Amino acid sequence: MKINKSILIISFFSVLSLFSQKIKSPDKNTFLTFSLTEEGVPSYSVMYKNQEAIKFSKLGFELKNDNQNLMDGFSILNSVNTSFNETWNPVWGEESEIQNQYNELLVNLEQNESHRKMNIRFRVFNNAVGFRYEFPVQDNLGHFVIKDEKTQFAMTGDHTAFWIPGDYDTQEYDYIESRLSEIRGLMASSITDNLAQTSFSSTGVQTSLMLKTDNGLYINLHEAALIDYSVMHLNLDDKNMIFEAWLTPDAKGDRPYMITPANTPWRTIIVSDDARDVLASRITYNLNEPSNIEDTSWIKPVKYVGVWWEMIAGKSSWSYTDDFKAVKLGFTDYNNASPNGKHGATTEHVKEYVDFAAKHGFDAVLVEGWNVGWEDWFGHSKDYVFDFVTPYPDFNVEEVHNYAKSKGIKMIMHHETSGSVRNYERHIDKAYQFMKDNGYDAVKSGYVGNILPRGENHYSQWMVNHYQYALEKAADYQIMLNAHEAVRPTGIARTYPNLIGNESARGTEYQAFGGSNANHVTILPFTRLIGGPMDYTPGIFEMDLSKVNPQNNSHVNSTLANQLALYVTMYSPLQMAADLPENYNRFLDAFQFIKDVGIDWEKSIYLEAEPGSYITIARKEKGTNNWFVGNVNGKSNRNSKVSLDFLDKDKVYIATIYADAKNANYKTNPQAYIIKKYKVTNKSKLSQLSVKGGGYAISIIESNKREANKYSEL
Amino acid sequence: MKINKSILIISFFSVLSLFSQKIKSPDKNTFLTFSLTEEGVPSYSVMYKNQEAIKFSKLGFELKNDNQNLMDGFSILNSVNTSFNETWNPVWGEESEIQNQYNELLVNLEQNESHRKMNIRFRVFNNAVGFRYEFPVQDNLGHFVIKDEKTQFAMTGDHTAFWIPGDYDTQEYDYIESRLSEIRGLMASSITDNLAQTSFSSTGVQTSLMLKTDNGLYINLHEAALIDYSVMHLNLDDKNMIFEAWLTPDAKGDRPYMITPANTPWRTIIVSDDARDVLASRITYNLNEPSNIEDTSWIKPVKYVGVWWEMIAGKSSWSYTDDFKAVKLGFTDYNNASPNGKHGATTEHVKEYVDFAAKHGFDAVLVEGWNVGWEDWFGHSKDYVFDFVTPYPDFNVEEVHNYAKSKGIKMIMHHETSGSVRNYERHIDKAYQFMKDNGYDAVKSGYVGNILPRGENHYSQWMVNHYQYALEKAADYQIMLNAHEAVRPTGIARTYPNLIGNESARGTEYQAFGGSNANHVTILPFTRLIGGPMDYTPGIFEMDLSKVNPQNNSHVNSTLANQLALYVTMYSPLQMAADLPENYNRFLDAFQFIKDVGIDWEKSIYLEAEPGSYITIARKEKGTNNWFVGNVNGKSNRNSKVSLDFLDKDKVYIATIYADAKNANYKTNPQAYIIKKYKVTNKSKLSQLSVKGGGYAISIIESNKREANKYSEL
Repeated sequence: MKINKSILIISFFSVLSLFSQKIKSPDKNTFLTFSLTEEGVPSYSVMYKNQEAIKFSKLGFELKNDNQNLMDGFSILNSVNTSFNETWNPVWGEESEIQNQYNELLVNLEQNESHRKMNIRFRVFNNAVGFRYEFPVQDNLGHFVIKDEKTQFAMTGDHTAFWIPGDYDTQEYDYIESRLSEIRGLMASSITDNLAQTSFSSTGVQTSLMLKTDNGLYINLHEAALIDYSVMHLNLDDKNMIFEAWLTPDAKGDRPYMITPANTPWRTIIVSDDARDVLASRITYNLNEPSNIEDTSWIKPVKYVGVWWEMIAGKSSWSYTDDFKAVKLGFTDYNNASPNGKHGATTEHVKEYVDFAAKHGFDAVLVEGWNVGWEDWFGHSKDYVFDFVTPYPDFNVEEVHNYAKSKGIKMIMHHETSGSVRNYERHIDKAYQFMKDNGYDAVKSGYVGNILPRGENHYSQWMVNHYQYALEKAADYQIMLNAHEAVRPTGIARTYPNLIGNESARGTEYQAFGGSNANHVTILPFTRLIGGPMDYTPGIFEMDLSKVNPQNNSHVNSTLANQLALYVTMYSPLQMAADLPENYNRFLDAFQFIKDVGIDWEKSIYLEAEPGSYITIARKEKGTNNWFVGNVNGKSNRNSKVSLDFLDKDKVYIATIYADAKNANYKTNPQAYIIKKYKVTNKSKLSQLSVKGGGYAISIIESNKREANKYSEL
Repeated sequence: MKINKSILIISFFSVLSLFSQKIKSPDKNTFLTFSLTEEGVPSYSVMYKNQEAIKFSKLGFELKNDNQNLMDGFSILNSVNTSFNETWNPVWGEESEIQNQYNELLVNLEQNESHRKMNIRFRVFNNAVGFRYEFPVQDNLGHFVIKDEKTQFAMTGDHTAFWIPGDYDTQEYDYIESRLSEIRGLMASSITDNLAQTSFSSTGVQTSLMLKTDNGLYINLHEAALIDYSVMHLNLDDKNMIFEAWLTPDAKGDRPYMITPANTPWRTIIVSDDARDVLASRITYNLNEPSNIEDTSWIKPVKYVGVWWEMIAGKSSWSYTDDFKAVKLGFTDYNNASPNGKHGATTEHVKEYVDFAAKHGFDAVLVEGWNVGWEDWFGHSKDYVFDFVTPYPDFNVEEVHNYAKSKGIKMIMHHETSGSVRNYERHIDKAYQFMKDNGYDAVKSGYVGNILPRGENHYSQWMVNHYQYALEKAADYQIMLNAHEAVRPTGIARTYPNLIGNESARGTEYQAFGGSNANHVTILPFTRLIGGPMDYTPGIFEMDLSKVNPQNNSHVNSTLANQLALYVTMYSPLQMAADLPENYNRFLDAFQFIKDVGIDWEKSIYLEAEPGSYITIARKEKGTNNWFVGNVNGKSNRNSKVSLDFLDKDKVYIATIYADAKNANYKTNPQAYIIKKYKVTNKSKLSQLSVKGGGYAISIIESNKREANKYSEL
C-alpha cells in the first residue's frame, strides 16, 4: 500500500479567550468554523463556496445519572491544526487509489467546574467535513453513560430531503422525497410493515440522509467508523429546521456506555453544488482506520447466483417439511419427517445452480435454507433457532462441495440468526470452522426479526458490538462477510475489508414483496451506499412475479435494462445475478452484460447524477482496459447525454449498449430492450433514452480497428 | 452405578368424568389428591399422616398474547399410574447410595375448546411430593410465552416461615423467622443492601422455603431440575395464606418462552413431622436426570484454602493498582502502572498459601484477583470487564503452577464475570482451555452486580440458560464448577456432577460485611442446601475483623467450635478453610479438625434438627471407618444429646470433641473452646453443651482397645 503522508503540525497553545477558529478544505471551497459560546458551549458551522451549508450548531452530551452534562461550561485548553495527505489502495473498490486529504483542527476542551476533558477533532476535506468527540484518559471521567448526544446539524432552510423513517430495527423503507417541513405529515404513511421495526419520533429520520437546498447545494449527513457506539439517527426540530443526533438506546433506554479513552464515531457532512461529488466522496472510508488484516489476498470480489429468489418469490421454501408446529433442535426428528416438496436447497437443485454458474463464468453459488430449523425460524423470539452446522436430510454438504469444486465454483454459506445473537455467538466458531472444512470462504448472515437478548434493537451499542465481533471473527477465519439486516455500514470495510457486503436497506427482495419505487436505485447511491457496498441482488429479468409463483402478484418496478445498469451504478464487490436460471436462459443476449461486467474497478467516473432522478457512472475494470457504463433513470423518460472522453486517447473500442426500447415501460413493458454495438473512441458522445424506472448499460471493450470497423461509429 | 429398577405400570384409560385421584407414598404416610374442578381447573392437595399439608391448590398458566390460557376448561384424556424404585450412586454426596422410590400419577389433560394438551406428572415419595407440567408435541401448541405460572401452594394456617425476600437478583439475605401473616410488615426491613437486587412484592419470598405448622408439620417448598425456565419465587396471598408461583421475568417482563415438547421444572414439597426428614430427603436430586457425564473420574471433592478472606476483610485488594479511573483491556498499560502495595494475588504470596496447603494436607489453593481488570470491575455495567487469561504483572501463572505442582497442590481458577455474561461466553472456551493448559481443573465463577445484557436479572430464563451453558462447557473441558451469585441449585448436580458448589445464599463473606444472624447456619441446611451444596467457606477462627484489617469493625457471629461443626453440618464436596494461615497457626489444635474432617461420605445420620435452633449430623467418611459429627446451635445455649449407636457394633473408636467452652459466647468470647478425647463405642451417649451461635465437632476414628483405653469412656 502506497502512502504519501505529509503532516504539518501548527500547534499553538491558546489562552482561554479563544472563541472561534476557521478551518478550510484543501481546495478552499469548504470551511468549518468552530466556536465556543459565552456559556462555553462548543459549536460549529459549515460554509461551501460562500454559501452557508450548516448553520450554528451546538455540540455536546447529556449524561445519565451525572450532575455534570458535557454540554456547556467548557474552556479551550489548546487547539492543534494539522494537514494530512495520503493515497491508499483499497483491497476492492470503485477505484484502486483513494486520496485522503484534509486539514484538521483538534480542539482540546475542559469543563470549568468538573475539570472534565472533551476534545473535538474536525477534519475538512474537499466537499466534506467530519468531526468526532474524543474523551482522553483523565481523573474526572472514567465510565460514563450517554443519555443523549446533542450534536446538531442546523439546516439553512426547508430543504428537500430523501429520507426514510427513523427506526431502531430496520432501514428497509422506500425513500420519501419531501420538504423537511413535510416529514411530520408523511411519517405515518412512510412506515410500511417490516418484520422488525421500532420507530421513535414523528420527525426522526435515518442517515445517511440526502438533502438538497433551494440554492442547489447537495448535503449528505452520515457517520463513519461506528465502533462500540450506537447508531445515530437524526431528529428534526421542524420549527427551526435543526437536526439533532438521536442515538439508539439499549434495552433499558440508555445510550452508549463509554470508558475513557474513547472516541465517538465521526459525524460526516458531504456538501457540494454538484451531486456527482457526493457519489465521488470517500470521506466515510477516509475516516476509518487502515486495514487491520495484514494478508488480504483471500479477499476477492464475487459474482454469484443462488438458491434464493425462488424462496423470496414463494416458489420454493427454505423449510424442508410442514410436519412441525415447532422445532427443538436436537429433539426434532427430521429424518422421519415428510418433505414438503418445495424445499429449494436440495443437493440436486443446487447442482443445477452450480452447473449454471460454471457455464456462465460466475464465481460462486449461495444456498439458503440448507440447514435445519427453518420450520419456525421467525416470529417466536426463539433462542436456539439454528446450529449452523446441521444440513437438512436432502442437502449433502460434502457432495455439493465436491461437485462445486470440480466445476471451479465456490459455495457461499448462509447463516440466518433470526436476531438470536447469543445463539449465533455460541455457535460462531464451530460454524466458521465448518465453513472452512467444507470449502466455503464467504458467508451471508441474516438478522431477521426482533433481537435476542430481548429488549435490544438492531442498532444499539450491544448489537453494533455483535456485528463487529462477527466481522472480526470472520477475519480470523479468513471468511468474507455479507451481513443482512445488520447495522448500515459506516466505512468499516476499510479496516476489515472482509466486509464485502451488507443489506441494511430496501433491497431487491421488496420487488417480490409488493415492489419498490421506480426511482429507488437513483437514491440508494446517495444514501445507503455512502457507508459501503450493498448486496442489492440485482438482475431480475422476469418482472411479473406471478410467472415465478402464481400466488405472487408482485411486480418488479424496473425495466430489464435498468436491472443491467445496477451492476455499474450500485457499486459492490459482491454482485448477484438474482433471477432464476430459466429466466436468464430466455434472455441470454441481455444476460451477456451480467456475464461481462466487472466487479472490481481501477477508476470510476461519475457522469451524471441527480438524487431521485438519474445516475450515470462509467467504471474501468481493474486489470483490463474494459469500461462499463450504467445509467439508472427515476422519475420520467430522459435522454442521457454523456461523453466517452474518459476512454484512452489512441484506442478504439467496441461498445455494446443495452438500453430501454422506445416502447419500454417499467410497469407494462419492462422487457422491451435493445442491444446495439458501436465503434467508440474517446471522442464519442452518447445520447441515449432511458424510460422512467429504466436505464442502460454499456460494455466498452478495447478492440482493434479492423474489428471495430465492423460497427458504425456512435 | 448400580441401579435397581422396578417399574410397575398400571394404566387405565379413563372416561372424561374422572375428577379425582389419590396417590400415596410407598410408606403410605404421604398422599396427594389430584382433582379437576367442574370448570376444568386442575388442582391438587397433600396429606401427611392424616393431616392436611397443602390445601386445595390450583394449577395452570396464564399465557402472553394468547386468547387461551392454560388454566381451565380441561378434561382428562387419561391417567397413568406407575411405581418406581431404584438405587443410584452419586459421584459425591452425603451418602454413597441414594434410593429413588416413588409412586407416580401422570394425568393427561386436554383443553376442551383449544384442544391443547397439558400433562401433569406427580411423584409421591416418602415425605415428599414433586410435580411438573409437561407439554407434548401437538398441533395446537408449539411456541408459547408464559405470562404467569399460577401454581398454588395453599397453606393450612398462619405457619411459621423461615424466609428471605423474593428477589430477581440475589439470595444473600439473612433469614427471617416469622408467621406468614407477618411477612408483609417485615419485608422492608428484611431487604438489606446488596450489590444487585430487585425485589418485586411485599409478600414475595424465595425457595426453598421452610415452614412449620402449629401442629408440628415441617413443610419445605422448592423446585428441582430448573432447566430452560426461570426461577420460581412464591408470592403470598396473606388473606387466604395461599402461595402462588412468581416467575422471574426477562428484560421485557415476559416469563419463560416455551417450545413443545417442554417440561417445567418440578415443584417440590417435602413434608414430615420430624425436621430431620427434611434434611434427609433426596427428592431434589431424585427428580433430576442421571449423570450426563460418562467418565466422572476427574470429579473429586476438594478441601482448599485461598487468597480470598484477606480481600473480603479489606486487608488486601483484588486490584493491582490505584492508577486507573477506568480500565480498557488491551489499551490500559499495566506494566507501567504503580502497584498499590495491597494486591493479594502476587506470586510470592500465593506460594505461601501453597506452602500452607501442602503442609496441612489440603488439596488446592484458590486465587482471586490474579487477572487484569479489577480496578473497575464493579458498578459500571461494563461489557468487556475481564478476559480471563491475562494475569497481573506480579502474578506468574506458570511459576505458580509449577510450584504448586511440585508440592502436590492444585490451583483453583477464579472467573469473576461481573454479571457480563456475553463477555464471559465469548471468552469461555479460551478461558477454560487456559485453565487446562495451566493445570487448573476447578473454577470458582462469580456474577457480582447487575447483569449484562442489561435488563436481564440473575434468575431469568436467559441467565438460567447461561449458567447451564457454562456448566456444560465446563463438563466438556473436564472442569469442576463452583458458581457464585448464580441461580440457586435445584439438584442439577446429579446430571452434571461437575457442579461441585454454588453460593446463592448469604455466605461467610457477610460475616466480614457486618455479620449474619447467629442461627443462620441452623437454617441454611433446611433452605439453600435443599437444592445442592454451598461453598459456604467456613473455618473463620478470628471473629474480630479489626484484627485482620483495622478498618473493618465487623464481627463473625459464631464461636470457633461452631465454625468447625460447619464442615459436617453444611454438606459440600468443596470445603474451604477460609481464614488466614496466620489465624490457623494460632489455633493449630482446633485446626486439626479441619485437617481431619472428611469431604465425601458413605452415609449421613441426622441426629437432631430444628430449623433456626439446632442441627446435629453424623457422617461416615467414604473409604474409611471414620465418622465426623457436627452440631450447630442457634438461639440459646443448649445441651445436645445424641447416641453414637450409628457406630459399628464391635469396634472401638477415639472421639475428639471440639466444643464450646462453658464461658464461650459468640459475641464476646467466641474463641473459648475445649478439646476432649474419649474412647467411644456404639453404646456411647453424648451430652454436650453448645452456646448460642456455637456448636461442636467430633472426629471419631476407629482405634484398637489398647490405644482407646488411654482415654476415658464417654
